[in-house]
Amino acid sequence: MQEGIEVRVQEAMREIARGVNEIIGIEYIQSLVERYYKSGETFSIKAGFDPTAPDLHLGHTVLIQKMATFQKHGAIVTFLIGDYTAMIGDPTGKNETRKPLTREQVLQNAQSYQDQVFKILDPQKTVIRFNSEWLEKLGTAGMIELTAKFSVARMLERDDFEKRYKSQTPISLVEFIYPLLQGYDSVALESDVEFGGTDQKFNLLMGRHLQRSYGLKKEQSVLMVPILEGLDGVQKMSKSLGNYIGVTEEPNTMYAKVLSISDELMWRYYELLSAKSLDEIRKLQEDVKSGNYHPKKAKEDLALEITTRYHSEQDALQAKEEFDKVFARDEIPSEMPELGVTGEIWICKAMVEGGISPSTSQARRDIQAGSVKVNQTKAEDINQQLGHGEHIIQVGKRKFLRLIVK
Amino acid sequence: MQEGIEVRVQEAMREIARGVNEIIGIEYIQSLVERYYKSGETFSIKAGFDPTAPDLHLGHTVLIQKMATFQKHGAIVTFLIGDYTAMIGDPTGKNETRKPLTREQVLQNAQSYQDQVFKILDPQKTVIRFNSEWLEKLGTAGMIELTAKFSVARMLERDDFEKRYKSQTPISLVEFIYPLLQGYDSVALESDVEFGGTDQKFNLLMGRHLQRSYGLKKEQSVLMVPILEGLDGVQKMSKSLGNYIGVTEEPNTMYAKVLSISDELMWRYYELLSAKSLDEIRKLQEDVKSGNYHPKKAKEDLALEITTRYHSEQDALQAKEEFDKVFARDEIPSEMPELGVTGEIWICKAMVEGGISPSTSQARRDIQAGSVKVNQTKAEDINQQLGHGEHIIQVGKRKFLRLIVK
Repeated sequence: MQEGIEVRVQEAMREIARGVNEIIGIEYIQSLVERYYKSGETFSIKAGFDPTAPDLHLGHTVLIQKMATFQKHGAIVTFLIGDYTAMIGDPTGKNETRKPLTREQVLQNAQSYQDQVFKILDPQKTVIRFNSEWLEKLGTAGMIELTAKFSVARMLERDDFEKRYKSQTPISLVEFIYPLLQGYDSVALESDVEFGGTDQKFNLLMGRHLQRSYGLKKEQSVLMVPILEGLDGVQKMSKSLGNYIGVTEEPNTMYAKVLSISDELMWRYYELLSAKSLDEIRKLQEDVKSGNYHPKKAKEDLALEITTRYHSEQDALQAKEEFDKVFARDEIPSEMPELGVTGEIWICKAMVEGGISPSTSQARRDIQAGSVKVNQTKAEDINQQLGHGEHIIQVGKRKFLRLIVK
Repeated sequence: MQEGIEVRVQEAMREIARGVNEIIGIEYIQSLVERYYKSGETFSIKAGFDPTAPDLHLGHTVLIQKMATFQKHGAIVTFLIGDYTAMIGDPTGKNETRKPLTREQVLQNAQSYQDQVFKILDPQKTVIRFNSEWLEKLGTAGMIELTAKFSVARMLERDDFEKRYKSQTPISLVEFIYPLLQGYDSVALESDVEFGGTDQKFNLLMGRHLQRSYGLKKEQSVLMVPILEGLDGVQKMSKSLGNYIGVTEEPNTMYAKVLSISDELMWRYYELLSAKSLDEIRKLQEDVKSGNYHPKKAKEDLALEITTRYHSEQDALQAKEEFDKVFARDEIPSEMPELGVTGEIWICKAMVEGGISPSTSQARRDIQAGSVKVNQTKAEDINQQLGHGEHIIQVGKRKFLRLIVK
């Protein structure tokens, strides 16, 4: 019996460590998992989310999937909504995009978060908390006490602060306050483990430091998941960079976006996003190498798995079919942009007005290069006029325009 | 009439500028004084005091006397008691001497302040305020907003912070908060002028900065008085250094302490503490130089003026008489430490037990050197036993002991 528990704990720790960048305090995590398997006692995981941007993308889900793994091994996940600072907005007034949110907006965004995360997390083992609950109560005296817990020099050791201070880029004092408030959340929640991206290491360690300073008898362990690269394979996945796959995106878009990544990035996504075991993934890689499994097929399987997760298997299969129609079998998609004109129109002008060519001179060059089709027939004449009726103009493999001439 | 006002304003500005180290925004002060002489409208002066140390010494009175001058020219003085942070104490827990005060202690200390300052200030033109009134209300959100108003780099420009940061002496983040809170007091009070020592320049300017940041239509002027040297003539007068004259000290002590300063320091005290005009003081200096006025007399006159201010003319004259008796005419003072013993006692032992000699061997040497008197007669025998009755033992000119043998 005792041995059975040991095996389960070892397995749990392997799953927990998979694809993780760094764990600080792994012994404490192991003791919590052990306790759970022995006595059923749960422990508490904290993961903070910014309520100003309620649209999650796959970059966030690396962390959320890891929380789901912990839930299987005794964790209650506290999904922490940082509503307090969100309602303040940007107190320096410099960041126009960080307008203060109202309580209604925060609640709405929190609901939107739940709708998204419960596709991955077990709602029975998830608690949603708002940090206004304890930050409001801190008050002036509490803030004074909090700032007394950390030194200026140590704050300036944080990478980005150090760089900005050295390059004389202003740092507002309030930016020193935020890591303290985030750390104080760990004090208030008495969290056992905190999750974050590797770029959050400083702030995650703050929680440990403050738990000690405020006399808690434990220190949270810290688990850092890697930053997921965006579709470009280089930059961090982020909405502002446009290189993301949102968890609420349409099945067709989601599927197509996964298909667009490089083979190299595909294996990275397999490791961080797929439910397949590391052994299974290694097997796939070997099969690709030996020629038994086409890399295109591997990418399709990943796209199907991800699309199924956020939609349904049926949606995913439909998305695949649609994608294959357009890109693989070179067929005409069922949906495309439309342009309606009266009389007749010069082919190059139609291409520009319909948004599939940046300029008439580019359109001319594309026709000359033989990469433009009208109704699936190669266009030959750069001066062609298109008259009454419907014309499907296609540039390369992916750009389509439905031209309707009345 | 208009010309009459101009003359009075010019005179007021001369008095205001006397002995002052630096004024920032002097034009604004002049406009306030002008307005007062034209319309009777008053303006507001802020001076903050630390309620943890309610004993004022003459170092503080330089500033308080300057406030009294302003009161003559239209100022209402806000005597600001920093009770809020005093009730918190030292949040870093490092400074044992900064224990949190209770509300009762703060009120008691504030009362003690009033008793002292109203010897100089006009109570009709003085308001006592406590900063807990607005700092408590700031709350977490207000503190976040406040810290957003200043940058880390500018805070590190403060002399002492810069030195400590460079020498890697820890600076707690809370120390960055205090100047902001002090500056916020100026926002809450909408003060027109703030007073402080030259060592407070950074904090005083913070008030100006924050008034602007919070959208006030005015910026307080800043008036810095010099730091008064202590009795040693070198270090800043301070209670902890022991080189101070407290305003509540006994007339005898006060008078004697002034008499103990050097001639050079005497002129500095004349400039900063005397009610005499600068012209009168210059005249005194010339008289001393030409031999028409003894420097000892000048010092006595200063001691009388200061002792009269904090006690009464009668007290001052009595103090002078007492001082002269002891130090000048070598007479026996009316008060001195007493030692009561039974039987008889060896003279050297009596001197040690009575606290006028550090050891019996020193007592022996003093007797041998001829500097010990018993009942105004030189002691000759180092083995002398003193029997029944009262014996006045004197060492040198200033140490006396009344020995009563029963």
